[in-house]
Amino acid sequence: MADIGLIGLGTMGAALALNIAENRFDLAVWNRTGSRTSAFYDESGKLAQRITPTYTLESFVKAIRPPRAIILMLPAGRVVDDMITELDALLDPDDLIIDAGNANFHDTNRRSAGKRPFIGIGISGGEEGARSGPSVMAGGLRKYWDRVAPIFDAIAAKYKGSTCAIWAGEAGAGHFVKTVHNGIEYADMQMIADVYGIMRDGMDMNSQSIGGVFERWNAGELKSYLIEVSWKVASTRDVITGLALLDVILDKAGQKGTGQWAVIEAQQLGTPVTTMEAAVASRNLSARREERIQAELVFSPAMIGGTKMVIEIDVLERALLAAKIIGYAQGFAMISAASARFGWALPLPDIAKVWRAGCIIRSAMLNDMAAALAEAPGRNLAFAPAFADKLDATQGDLRSVVADATRAGIAVPALSASLNWFDEMRTGRGTANLIQAQRDYFGRHGFQRIDSDLADHHGPWISPDKDSQVPGTGAMNM
Amino acid sequence: MADIGLIGLGTMGAALALNIAENRFDLAVWNRTGSRTSAFYDESGKLAQRITPTYTLESFVKAIRPPRAIILMLPAGRVVDDMITELDALLDPDDLIIDAGNANFHDTNRRSAGKRPFIGIGISGGEEGARSGPSVMAGGLRKYWDRVAPIFDAIAAKYKGSTCAIWAGEAGAGHFVKTVHNGIEYADMQMIADVYGIMRDGMDMNSQSIGGVFERWNAGELKSYLIEVSWKVASTRDVITGLALLDVILDKAGQKGTGQWAVIEAQQLGTPVTTMEAAVASRNLSARREERIQAELVFSPAMIGGTKMVIEIDVLERALLAAKIIGYAQGFAMISAASARFGWALPLPDIAKVWRAGCIIRSAMLNDMAAALAEAPGRNLAFAPAFADKLDATQGDLRSVVADATRAGIAVPALSASLNWFDEMRTGRGTANLIQAQRDYFGRHGFQRIDSDLADHHGPWISPDKDSQVPGTGAMNM
Repeated sequence: MADIGLIGLGTMGAALALNIAENRFDLAVWNRTGSRTSAFYDESGKLAQRITPTYTLESFVKAIRPPRAIILMLPAGRVVDDMITELDALLDPDDLIIDAGNANFHDTNRRSAGKRPFIGIGISGGEEGARSGPSVMAGGLRKYWDRVAPIFDAIAAKYKGSTCAIWAGEAGAGHFVKTVHNGIEYADMQMIADVYGIMRDGMDMNSQSIGGVFERWNAGELKSYLIEVSWKVASTRDVITGLALLDVILDKAGQKGTGQWAVIEAQQLGTPVTTMEAAVASRNLSARREERIQAELVFSPAMIGGTKMVIEIDVLERALLAAKIIGYAQGFAMISAASARFGWALPLPDIAKVWRAGCIIRSAMLNDMAAALAEAPGRNLAFAPAFADKLDATQGDLRSVVADATRAGIAVPALSASLNWFDEMRTGRGTANLIQAQRDYFGRHGFQRIDSDLADHHGPWISPDKDSQVPGTGAMNM
Repeated sequence: MADIGLIGLGTMGAALALNIAENRFDLAVWNRTGSRTSAFYDESGKLAQRITPTYTLESFVKAIRPPRAIILMLPAGRVVDDMITELDALLDPDDLIIDAGNANFHDTNRRSAGKRPFIGIGISGGEEGARSGPSVMAGGLRKYWDRVAPIFDAIAAKYKGSTCAIWAGEAGAGHFVKTVHNGIEYADMQMIADVYGIMRDGMDMNSQSIGGVFERWNAGELKSYLIEVSWKVASTRDVITGLALLDVILDKAGQKGTGQWAVIEAQQLGTPVTTMEAAVASRNLSARREERIQAELVFSPAMIGGTKMVIEIDVLERALLAAKIIGYAQGFAMISAASARFGWALPLPDIAKVWRAGCIIRSAMLNDMAAALAEAPGRNLAFAPAFADKLDATQGDLRSVVADATRAGIAVPALSASLNWFDEMRTGRGTANLIQAQRDYFGRHGFQRIDSDLADHHGPWISPDKDSQVPGTGAMNM
């Protein structure tokens, strides 16, 4: 009998199934469209001996050894709920359902609160990650995770021998961590796109040269999968036109919504993830291509007379490094905030560790981040000595790159967002005293004084006649 | 008998009740704590003759002429639902409940879908606006609005004789418009705070001089209630210390959550409101004062040797003007998006008109915006000739202010967000081609080509060995 079952043989499901089989677990598979199941089975080669294809849910369930564990790899949302209902009628009470799709963690919270043993697992790494070793972020009751941990430990990516699978906490904790991962992924990609825009439009470099820069950076502190991908895509030629493939790709970005989930959740948590927000906004703005083309005709170019930007590539590298540290610090702060809000004990250093391999944001830097996060729980990553030193050494570069791009009219939304977060966070005396004064003036919302612990001070504010002061009002009586 | 009833005599409710009485409508009032009701009645002076204080819900309902209309001025959320349930037991079937509190428009959608005649009205203007003329944004069935429109038309602010009350559309349309208003309010306040920070920290100006600048600006194109408030608060002296009051106010901003609602809703709509997002993030960052004070000790100052910024005040004025146009354009684009999504026909020019007086964001510029929005429905406000010309004439100033502040280490999150939105929107060929290439490389998400209408192109991308190209994969097989 099969060790585990898997439902949903789409790109990610099929890849995960082959990964499980390759790790010598026997599995039963089922897909609503049976022809997909047989095609998958026919293409599974030597791994077929580990795979039991089934064509009814009943036979699928019977093919799995009790107590059963069944992985769902389905589109997020209602499809998952419907599948759970269908399965419920066929399963024994202690059979376990595992949603390893891209669920919204609120759904996972709800589903794991039901009677049916249920856990939610975030899987990152794209198709090839799923096939040969993804990052695995699990949530739900620990005892359920323990039942299937050997399988997921085996199929997960390895970073220098340690497995990139983690039990993050109860209920939707795993899918929450996956959501933050995706938010960071959006931020990282947009920061790279900002730098790409500077090189392409500000410095007039072609794709091949830009690819060469990414290749060099991938041998330095920025070494990461996304920089490697950027190098590869910038260096690829289009087989049709012979041009750089990058230059024939339309500049309208798609998204599956997980970046949006991340920034909405950060809003609910009151934790600022400004670089993620800039990234999501940029994808939305990219979609308005027709408006952008019109607008380009309406406005004068920012760069007078075609003067090009002159920035040393090393400066650009350090600027991206600074912005990246900040973007990741925002993401980890969001995980901290969720831990406090939801009563989870999300293990930040271990989360950084499972991201070191398998997932899209994997990088060497995450190893250092894991160490820094372990030093002082609760401290923002950006202020850990190892990263604060890096940031301090590179903030001037980020500053000059953002300033130059701003003057040249090159949009750098993600780099700007990172830098402004940094400048707000390192300013002991901010400008919110003005906001508080305005709010008290028009709404009597009250303010604190710097010289008192009492909470609810009010004006008096000067009246329309600026020389006299009306006590006790402070309302907009002009 | 009373023309209308009002429940909830907090700051806003009491002010609205007096406004109604002053406009010669008889009203019954009720408050859960009866002592508040009697205190309100005792303080209502000559208006007492129009007011019937009641101390049970039964007597309150009996004091109103059928078919009744009852305004709720209660804290948002469950309190409102509970009140509706209590009232339901006492009311006739065609009696109307009006939620004029700060509701989330999703709640208003839900409540107006019930059997009980129900409309939701957004009221802006703070306490004094409620007392002497607020902006009124109504939503729900038109026939219900028509029943109470004479009262709200009478109590609303007037802009050159025209009333600042509008029926925006069905269900939660009124509260939605109010939410966007509040998002714009957040953005506007933060842009002013950014400029304040430049003057205070970058240019070393004291509060009195800064107040003088706002006073002058209030005589120019920036003329608006929020600039006037900024002038007044910067010019007010603290009666305790004799210092500028602004300088003894703690820099931790409060918020009631409506700005957060606005940015979450914008995310759901996929419409980028980056300046609002920067404003909400800044309030959240301001709250982390202890972290900020620590961070200031960790990092080197950005401004070497205390060199101060040198910016002409006129340049700063034009920069703020440019950023403001963009921030408002984002807000109106959000209303457009909601119209399409929710099947509302939100009248953008009329919405701009009701904001010309009474509300917190009232300004002369909204009059021009109303005209520009009427010219070409669907066109982004920033691209309407009148505003595009202004933007084009001032974008250089915004650019130089943001660049200088960036170099000096003065955080300008809202100004930066506006400028980056503008630079992304006026760039015909953006950088999202790189994002699409990355997504196809690691997830086979596909891309469009610029030379084809077909949607789903894929690599081939070069393999790890950069000289060979592997057709048909494009996955991360390195």
